[in-house]
Amino acid sequence: MALIVQKYGGSSVADADSIKRVAKRIAEAKRAGDEVVVVVSAMGDTTDELIDLAQQMTPLPPSREMDILLTAGERISMSLLAMAISSLGVEAQSFTGQQAGVITDEVHGRARIIDVTPGRIQAAVDSGAVAIVAGFQGVTQHTNDVTTLGRGGSDTTAVALAAALEADVCEIYTDVDGVFTADPRIVPSARKIDRISYDEMLEMAASGAKVLMLRCVEYARRYGVPVHVRSSFSTHTGTLVTDAPDEEGAPMEQPIIAGVAHDRSEAKITIVDVPDVPGKAARIFEVVAGAGVNLDMIVQNVSVASTGRTDISFTLPASDGAAATAALTEHQPDIGFTSLQYDDTIGKLSLIGAGMKSHPGVSAKLFAALSDAGINIEMISTSEIRISVVTRADQLDEAVRAVHTAFELDSADEQAVVYGGTGR
Amino acid sequence: MALIVQKYGGSSVADADSIKRVAKRIAEAKRAGDEVVVVVSAMGDTTDELIDLAQQMTPLPPSREMDILLTAGERISMSLLAMAISSLGVEAQSFTGQQAGVITDEVHGRARIIDVTPGRIQAAVDSGAVAIVAGFQGVTQHTNDVTTLGRGGSDTTAVALAAALEADVCEIYTDVDGVFTADPRIVPSARKIDRISYDEMLEMAASGAKVLMLRCVEYARRYGVPVHVRSSFSTHTGTLVTDAPDEEGAPMEQPIIAGVAHDRSEAKITIVDVPDVPGKAARIFEVVAGAGVNLDMIVQNVSVASTGRTDISFTLPASDGAAATAALTEHQPDIGFTSLQYDDTIGKLSLIGAGMKSHPGVSAKLFAALSDAGINIEMISTSEIRISVVTRADQLDEAVRAVHTAFELDSADEQAVVYGGTGR
Repeated sequence: MALIVQKYGGSSVADADSIKRVAKRIAEAKRAGDEVVVVVSAMGDTTDELIDLAQQMTPLPPSREMDILLTAGERISMSLLAMAISSLGVEAQSFTGQQAGVITDEVHGRARIIDVTPGRIQAAVDSGAVAIVAGFQGVTQHTNDVTTLGRGGSDTTAVALAAALEADVCEIYTDVDGVFTADPRIVPSARKIDRISYDEMLEMAASGAKVLMLRCVEYARRYGVPVHVRSSFSTHTGTLVTDAPDEEGAPMEQPIIAGVAHDRSEAKITIVDVPDVPGKAARIFEVVAGAGVNLDMIVQNVSVASTGRTDISFTLPASDGAAATAALTEHQPDIGFTSLQYDDTIGKLSLIGAGMKSHPGVSAKLFAALSDAGINIEMISTSEIRISVVTRADQLDEAVRAVHTAFELDSADEQAVVYGGTGR
Repeated sequence: MALIVQKYGGSSVADADSIKRVAKRIAEAKRAGDEVVVVVSAMGDTTDELIDLAQQMTPLPPSREMDILLTAGERISMSLLAMAISSLGVEAQSFTGQQAGVITDEVHGRARIIDVTPGRIQAAVDSGAVAIVAGFQGVTQHTNDVTTLGRGGSDTTAVALAAALEADVCEIYTDVDGVFTADPRIVPSARKIDRISYDEMLEMAASGAKVLMLRCVEYARRYGVPVHVRSSFSTHTGTLVTDAPDEEGAPMEQPIIAGVAHDRSEAKITIVDVPDVPGKAARIFEVVAGAGVNLDMIVQNVSVASTGRTDISFTLPASDGAAATAALTEHQPDIGFTSLQYDDTIGKLSLIGAGMKSHPGVSAKLFAALSDAGINIEMISTSEIRISVVTRADQLDEAVRAVHTAFELDSADEQAVVYGGTGR
């Protein structure tokens, strides 16, 4: 008998019929003999509708009130799901983040979990019931106020509960069959990855793969929680994220390359004609950091000897573009640059694989593949298990396909059915 | 500086614009120098929509889950209201029933308040903020589970909080201008009552006046909370429910008659040819009580000497008609009656006034008025400050008008504007 934590996102519980379908899955898992704890998000568009209502009240709602408002969404989905499971003859009880013991700091809107004390959940499971827990929410330690965990919050709730309950596995149900070697909407021949290490999954998430949020993977790695990413629209085995040996006891199978991720959400700022003297680059990044912006890749051109000046480029989330540009322009006099170029028509491709550590020539092969496809590389950055390049945005899809093929990631057959969606 | 508890029902916060209108009222009260605690219901049709969703899951949802579901409604309205007030520059914080210290028993769906410990509300008020509290909900003492208070729950929350905070007044905002001498939809010349005693208001509520629920008036009487029933669509003074002397220090003005209430929600059961022997009536009412049904009025005809049998009639809520009929039919053999007649085309008129205790002739005048209007009286019951009669349902409106006129309750002018509704 295993203890399984299952997490269902908003698209899996979008309407009454979806909730009933999910309830059946849960009841089946329970009847098969497992102990089941379920984490659930708000139904489909509920959160957007609530945000819209708040915007009608005031453009800048107080964050404490916003959290109270948004957490109503999970109360609705969790109680409906408990009802649907009960109607199948399986006992189910729903619990708020507070009742489930999800304790957070006091940063409303993007609180971090500081402790999980799931006494009531354990008691419900011990009594033979399915415990349904509201995702995305917690409660502050001292003031007993409701908080939300921000983006990816429900996945994080599920992994945190799995860690606290010492669950055998945390199943993240989504509308795709698992983690793929590339986004199947761009690369129809992308393959589902059966097993992937935490480190590789972290790099995939950080590089734009949207199936799991970075934060949730970090939590899973820290506590060694095996995460099974799978579809709520099929019964296929999905992708297991773990560092554990496989069933034959062999250490994790480690192909050279795990997959190709892409990201369209970044922009590039080029600062033109910066005096090439010590301390100028530091000053620039100080100014940008002061605006609360996180940089990603950075390139400094070779200085032009005749002028003693150089250009510095960096990438950042496009959503931070305005803040960074404003801060830099304000400090133009003391930094002393000539002009500033903002470009949000870039794309980032990342090749990820723990195996590349011990295999030389991966970068060379990557650059050759892009060159053969006629794609220009604008920036490059690397980690031990990742190489990222910036291209023009309109060449990104072609770049992903070329690299995917060059590293022999293509499946023999194109995936017949990849995306779930309603009934698919 | 007074401490005021204000309660706004679902029709007062039906949509974004209504919430903003209510927010303005609250901000004005706060700016006028009062301390304000607000109790709010779910927006307009929210509760019905949530019930409908639950019904799609299962015809008999577990009551614990139903309560979690329904309380989402107040979370939404209370946080939106707090946002709207904040946007007017007045600090506001919202609190769940649990955070407000509303402790109840464990009867989900119709929990009773057993204690109110409003420490956080008092602290919020002391800090200068408006405290917004979710109506209709509480939390169990030992298990920390969410409960709902059932019908009239938000009014009761407001009065209970006012009692615990020792507020100066509890203002119940509704869509009418106050308590009227009769329902103005039936009697256009009905007058708004300026002051009414708890006892009279109790009899009015028990006799079908819908503006305040019986339970809320009972609570207010027990703790001596002055209740001001008024419209959220106007600034008129409404009806003050209190036993306190008026501002000149005189004891409460006590006209003979406070008003005429009516009720269409009852039905009449007549049990035909019951053996007129001791214990038979007791047995009948035992059977009915065993089915969980509360009786209202009871009439036993004079026994027919030749047969030794009699008829017994009683009224009950029409919603309990099926249960009572089934229970009686099941026990027909041991009670020994011939047949059973069920009649839900009756109406009940009640004349209420503390003054009638010391004024003889009130009943005579009532019967004369009905007789003059050609209306037959089928049953009669009385208390110290109330006389109720049952008539045919289709004669009830005419009866209410006749009695209202006979006791000189008609206003000189017909009320120009009585009902609020949206913008009216």
